Amino acid sequence: MTTQQQVRLAARPADGALPKFDFTSDPSRDLQDGEVKVELEYISLDPAMMGWTTDKRSYIAPVGIGEVMRAFGVGKVIESKSDYFKVGDYGTGFLGAQTESIVNSRELMKVDPSLAPVQYFLSGFGMTGCTAYFGLLDIGKPKDTDTVVVSSAAGAVGSIATQLAKQHARHVVGIAGGPEKCAFVKKELGADAVIDYKAGDIDAQLRAAAPDGIDVYFDNVGGEILDAVLGQINRHARIIVCGGVSQYGDMKNMQGPKNYMALTTHSGIMQGFTMRDYMRRVPEAIGELFTLHAAGKLKFREHILEGLEQLPAGLELLLRGGNQGKLLIKVAG
Amino acid sequence: MTTQQQVRLAARPADGALPKFDFTSDPSRDLQDGEVKVELEYISLDPAMMGWTTDKRSYIAPVGIGEVMRAFGVGKVIESKSDYFKVGDYGTGFLGAQTESIVNSRELMKVDPSLAPVQYFLSGFGMTGCTAYFGLLDIGKPKDTDTVVVSSAAGAVGSIATQLAKQHARHVVGIAGGPEKCAFVKKELGADAVIDYKAGDIDAQLRAAAPDGIDVYFDNVGGEILDAVLGQINRHARIIVCGGVSQYGDMKNMQGPKNYMALTTHSGIMQGFTMRDYMRRVPEAIGELFTLHAAGKLKFREHILEGLEQLPAGLELLLRGGNQGKLLIKVAG
Repeated sequence: MTTQQQVRLAARPADGALPKFDFTSDPSRDLQDGEVKVELEYISLDPAMMGWTTDKRSYIAPVGIGEVMRAFGVGKVIESKSDYFKVGDYGTGFLGAQTESIVNSRELMKVDPSLAPVQYFLSGFGMTGCTAYFGLLDIGKPKDTDTVVVSSAAGAVGSIATQLAKQHARHVVGIAGGPEKCAFVKKELGADAVIDYKAGDIDAQLRAAAPDGIDVYFDNVGGEILDAVLGQINRHARIIVCGGVSQYGDMKNMQGPKNYMALTTHSGIMQGFTMRDYMRRVPEAIGELFTLHAAGKLKFREHILEGLEQLPAGLELLLRGGNQGKLLIKVAG
Repeated sequence: MTTQQQVRLAARPADGALPKFDFTSDPSRDLQDGEVKVELEYISLDPAMMGWTTDKRSYIAPVGIGEVMRAFGVGKVIESKSDYFKVGDYGTGFLGAQTESIVNSRELMKVDPSLAPVQYFLSGFGMTGCTAYFGLLDIGKPKDTDTVVVSSAAGAVGSIATQLAKQHARHVVGIAGGPEKCAFVKKELGADAVIDYKAGDIDAQLRAAAPDGIDVYFDNVGGEILDAVLGQINRHARIIVCGGVSQYGDMKNMQGPKNYMALTTHSGIMQGFTMRDYMRRVPEAIGELFTLHAAGKLKFREHILEGLEQLPAGLELLLRGGNQGKLLIKVAG
């Protein structure tokens, strides 16, 4: 029998440093009625994890010091005291950064491993895909005459948002860091134009890439790119505030969008959301994403690390934009 | 015959200084077909004037150096080559900071001086009232269970927004500077609670004044008050970006809302607008404002300066929040 492992929050992020974690090997407990035990195969690493480790007021309680780090996961049911799951079924949900998880079956969403590799339920067919879907379509509402800009376009959510934008908008601009990612965004994701934010003058690059101004901006980064976009929005522009990864490194000194008054002069909207707003519509999103994927119009790229001990390194990779596609940790399976 | 006077833009605002103006006495010209000559009685001083004097990209072209300063005005037609206006009619529109204005009659909205003192068409029954009306009701959408916060609550737009909020929301909090203005907001405008932003710790004052969190924020100021509000918004909060008067003094170094990611964690909206979005619905707003005013549920306060030469001093008064109510210049009449 393998040893169980957990990653626990040891210290909150401070002064620009990442949170600290402890690794434990605590044994499992017996199930109560309604509960299932899941053997994790993959967990998802997300920028939102940074927020969960701070004690800022948020949509969800912070992870307590000493608690297992919150994480989305997918895995196989290995014990069940629930009528809804039998041993061998697969499920996804907040399973935590650990090898085995005990949850009430109501907190687990069943997935069918015959439809797709199970890790897809953490990327394109999971929260990542749904976040891109609802953010872009429900808040961004791209029209076929619109210019859409997506930041972190080579990232997990951004790469799906970019491809979805291509289905709905006239002109799609992806922003990414470095020539490799930019080539990926243009060639593989089909963006009409790309901007390398590491190649200087973002304002000028943006003017060249989006000569008709910007109607929809899917923002994963905040900071100076958000300001540059605000400086070039069209009337009634929609800005989807999905993430602010440029700011997560130093949560105490967040930089606000100093051009936000462009919202007034251009009658724009800046709107945030979490998946909590769309839980009932997840089947609609997954259905649509599945259809596009099956038709070859939606590609997923995954960046898979091996072993829970990679969690701190993975978070760091995520924050400095080093991942290529959706970052996952393979736990077992 | 009196000498005509004009206030012309002489220099754009720079390094935190206000724009500079020249005063001229240029004679009038002959009317062309479709034009009317209006003798101005009042002009309106608005924070937006600061924006019009910069050469930033905006919803409206900047005022050129040497041009008559843009201003809303109301006055009496003294010559007409238009079928729509006869001598003696009153009209309002962008008449400029001058004693006489020649405009195409299409740019002038007729007003009836028997319904209200003419200057009301620049305040409560003009752009000021309409801005409060559409911002609060169309973007803020207050429900009868909501807490609404209004900044610059003693100001022109804010005082109307505060009173309208009382008609629709459960709990209304006004923010103003100094005990006199706060007393006015509470006693005269009927706010349930007030915050004096000059009295320190805005976060704590806000927690006490809005113990159930904030659902709607009508923002006239930006800066640290906007950040404090963002820190205490409820889920699905609506923030109306109407003005950023705290930032107008130094347009080159605007401070963005560093707590803007609260939009994500609380699924909030931050939305701007200009009256251009609502031109067709102005009659609806004026009708509603007129009805409330007639029923004694809506008070207007005006702060009237005498003579065009007061324009620079008036702008300064506006930016440091020294005005008590809607700031107007009485030109003649």
